Amino acid sequence: MFAVAITLLAFDFTIHRTGYGTLAYQLTHDLWPSFLAYLVSFFMIGIIWVNHHVLIRQIAVVDRTLLFLNLGLLMFVVLIPFATSTVATYRLAGADARVSVAFYAAMFLGMSAGFGAIFEWTLHENRREQPLPAEAHWPARIRFVGGGVVYLLSIGVALLNAVAGFAVLALVAVYYIVERTPQAPAPAQDEAAGTAGNTTAE
Amino acid sequence: MFAVAITLLAFDFTIHRTGYGTLAYQLTHDLWPSFLAYLVSFFMIGIIWVNHHVLIRQIAVVDRTLLFLNLGLLMFVVLIPFATSTVATYRLAGADARVSVAFYAAMFLGMSAGFGAIFEWTLHENRREQPLPAEAHWPARIRFVGGGVVYLLSIGVALLNAVAGFAVLALVAVYYIVERTPQAPAPAQDEAAGTAGNTTAE
Amino acid sequence: MFAVAITLLAFDFTIHRTGYGTLAYQLTHDLWPSFLAYLVSFFMIGIIWVNHHVLIRQIAVVDRTLLFLNLGLLMFVVLIPFATSTVATYRLAGADARVSVAFYAAMFLGMSAGFGAIFEWTLHENRREQPLPAEAHWPARIRFVGGGVVYLLSIGVALLNAVAGFAVLALVAVYYIVERTPQAPAPAQDEAAGTAGNTTAE
Amino acid sequence: MFAVAITLLAFDFTIHRTGYGTLAYQLTHDLWPSFLAYLVSFFMIGIIWVNHHVLIRQIAVVDRTLLFLNLGLLMFVVLIPFATSTVATYRLAGADARVSVAFYAAMFLGMSAGFGAIFEWTLHENRREQPLPAEAHWPARIRFVGGGVVYLLSIGVALLNAVAGFAVLALVAVYYIVERTPQAPAPAQDEAAGTAGNTTAE
Repeated sequence: MFAVAITLLAFDFTIHRTGYGTLAYQLTHDLWPSFLAYLVSFFMIGIIWVNHHVLIRQIAVVDRTLLFLNLGLLMFVVLIPFATSTVATYRLAGADARVSVAFYAAMFLGMSAGFGAIFEWTLHENRREQPLPAEAHWPARIRFVGGGVVYLLSIGVALLNAVAGFAVLALVAVYYIVERTPQAPAPAQDEAAGTAGNTTAE
Repeated sequence: MFAVAITLLAFDFTIHRTGYGTLAYQLTHDLWPSFLAYLVSFFMIGIIWVNHHVLIRQIAVVDRTLLFLNLGLLMFVVLIPFATSTVATYRLAGADARVSVAFYAAMFLGMSAGFGAIFEWTLHENRREQPLPAEAHWPARIRFVGGGVVYLLSIGVALLNAVAGFAVLALVAVYYIVERTPQAPAPAQDEAAGTAGNTTAE
Repeated sequence: MFAVAITLLAFDFTIHRTGYGTLAYQLTHDLWPSFLAYLVSFFMIGIIWVNHHVLIRQIAVVDRTLLFLNLGLLMFVVLIPFATSTVATYRLAGADARVSVAFYAAMFLGMSAGFGAIFEWTLHENRREQPLPAEAHWPARIRFVGGGVVYLLSIGVALLNAVAGFAVLALVAVYYIVERTPQAPAPAQDEAAGTAGNTTAE
Repeated sequence: MFAVAITLLAFDFTIHRTGYGTLAYQLTHDLWPSFLAYLVSFFMIGIIWVNHHVLIRQIAVVDRTLLFLNLGLLMFVVLIPFATSTVATYRLAGADARVSVAFYAAMFLGMSAGFGAIFEWTLHENRREQPLPAEAHWPARIRFVGGGVVYLLSIGVALLNAVAGFAVLALVAVYYIVERTPQAPAPAQDEAAGTAGNTTAE
């Protein structure tokens, strides 16, 4: 599902043979908002995909509640190609562009909340193979709430200025890719535990 | 397959840069029938996906008959993005809208019948790892037939009134999400047995 | 991959809100060639999917040759949505329709040859977990060659009459679904051996 | 993901019922650039898919770095349907065609670099189940760098002559399919080790 959504992101790229200038012009002038939005969306979905993969491998118990929480997350993931295409359509300029970036940020807020709900579910009733120590629960939750606050902020910023709102989201993506230092408590443990398994990410 | 079908649901959303009003107007006025139909279809496919996943994990024997029954189910699942798009096109108003909702309900009837056929197949010849006790067969069957009657009813209601027919289907989706109480006999056993396995829903 | 191809088949269905008559008229008059071609393609891909699944489970050794033979098969599977759409476009009437059905049949011929090549590969060097007895090799091969001859024939028939050519292909699909009697030598053994495994067809 | 990208390649084929000549004419005159580009892209993605599959099965340790390296590879894989469609649009003739083939070659360069990064990652810290002997590291790296040089060259050639640039890429695809001789050091070992596992390529 992540795979399908991430592949469909690239569907927004279209080349026109006539009436839109040379290919070089189209690639560098017309398509840059699509490429930019593609890049941010690709890594945002990719980060959630990686985190989801690492989290799911830790889970010892699969029940219907987890499957429905997963559906809630995926409902937002599936909307991201549409939100990405909308941002690219309005090219970060004008009143509609402000709405488009706010809508785009709202999808990330939903995706983040959906992932947080699955994470919260794993903390209880021995649902993880190697339970997270209780003292690590609140730091992890605070990180999720912190992420949510940033997305809320980016909605507000986007409604004032589309470029600034989009820049906040791009910075969040860069932060999440760079951030995964071995010292970070919760992810590091997942990573250590994850070395026992063998998997393909296809 | 469920993943591909559920992702393609969101393909129906399109933003027009010019001639259709502001983005905010399009999102709130033009796209609401698409969003509404998306939501109902997303959870309908999601519920079947979850139930299919839980049922398949219980199966001890895979033969060609099961694979072909699966194909029968998937034939309807794959048509749901088209039926969803048709409902959104006619916006729940007028004679065509009544036909569109009836057609949409017919796809859910087919999906439900396809799932019921797989369920029936699992009841016989020790095809489940933990066979369902014989006294639970008829209550489970009655639930399936009951679901089928509701879909048939919704086809009839839709032909009289598109909004009412769609509302019946939306209520069915809400019912299936809320309904899975631990006391329900057949699903509860699946759920308990399912805790031994570990799986991702991607 | 089979899942993606089979889901994309339904992408050919489009409803026009204005200028094409009522929805009921479009569903019953305009879309029947699409529905018909969809049905045949769906079951043709489905049959190969089921057979491929049963065959792959029997394989003890995976090497690069097998992976490339798989690619060869998939090259034709991936073209079937396009060929299906082409058949639906020309609606089984006129000179173009004859070419469209011949092209469609050629894709099935390629798919069948690709599957036959994988099957042939499994016969040698203990590549199956339970090797097929030598005396069953030639009957199985003859069945494959027989299928190939029927597809060749359907290309010829299609070039004379589109409806007749399409009917031959539809009959092949029906035959393959009905045919899998327990007495059939090769598939029956696969089926018996297959009962040990547990798998999902998603 | 590879499966979705490879299936979407065929989406570029479109038949026009009127105004574009007969179907036979369209298939043989209008669509040949699409078919040609489809074939090359199909086998290029297929080769990376097979190699990726063989490499991943060798991996004993999965961590976040590997998952992000995978994302880097997939970012280019996902762009290949768009690059393929662009090449087909300009039909290998004119200034735009030269840019289109150079862009297409750049995607393969990115895909190759992404795969090389994953391969390099597997060489260190016992990340392979059967570590590659140290003396095989440099020959393998030289092969990757050699591949990269050929792609760089094809970008240069394409900017001078679209047909020649495309021919270089087609030859690379043919070379990779034919090349996998059992004597080749690194792949041969993967292949031998790979015979222990059983997998489907769906």
